[in-house]
Amino acid sequence: MDRIPILKMGSFLLVTIQVDLYDRLALTLENDLITMVSRTGAKGVLIDISAVSIVDSFMGRILGNIASMSRIMDAETVVVGMQPAVAITLVELGLTLQGVHTALDVEKGMELLHSKIGITDEPEEDEEGPDDSND
Amino acid sequence: MDRIPILKMGSFLLVTIQVDLYDRLALTLENDLITMVSRTGAKGVLIDISAVSIVDSFMGRILGNIASMSRIMDAETVVVGMQPAVAITLVELGLTLQGVHTALDVEKGMELLHSKIGITDEPEEDEEGPDDSND
Repeated sequence: MDRIPILKMGSFLLVTIQVDLYDRLALTLENDLITMVSRTGAKGVLIDISAVSIVDSFMGRILGNIASMSRIMDAETVVVGMQPAVAITLVELGLTLQGVHTALDVEKGMELLHSKIGITDEPEEDEEGPDDSND
Repeated sequence: MDRIPILKMGSFLLVTIQVDLYDRLALTLENDLITMVSRTGAKGVLIDISAVSIVDSFMGRILGNIASMSRIMDAETVVVGMQPAVAITLVELGLTLQGVHTALDVEKGMELLHSKIGITDEPEEDEEGPDDSND
């Protein structure tokens, strides 16, 4: 088991975390996820952590990292299925998962992503760069 | 890690197998899945095995069992993401996964389920039992 599978579902990517995220696995997941976002043009990333019963600051940081990276790649991240004990631990650790959206389950997460993507289609500010039109 | 999470997505259930299915875990998965089919009225079960690189006759039997149980509960089973080596091994083991539908990835599996559910809405043959109408 050297990598966590990433499932493409329409314009979203779904990741189910079922094992402990040790260093190398977490880095591989970050890499794979960003590569997939880039390759598929996914607009949302759903991370299901319903099987995660123990959380530490490392795990919290990884989730934050993934959310930050995805946002730079123009994709929203929603963490779903968090167990109550995990939420308690995260807050006690002082990790409020800034920039990470959460939802109770995958279906609600999908709805949230749909609404986010629906709302965030405002015109982007074009940076005025040199006219490098290569047509 | 004592159980594999089952994600409900609309009228389908999605299971991602990322770990080796030893005896107890497989039985728990079978139980959980059938309970979920019953509780949610799911019409399809998607099993993603893209992270499974080694398969044995036990795994083949478990997939067959799940498909048989689901069919009795009026749900179709589609196995997706099978690695080529796994397909080779299954055939060499003489396991042709009868009754299990397969698709290349989750998206194609979803399409297959949609088409199956669309097709299979033919009227069921009612068994002529005693008239136990409790209205």
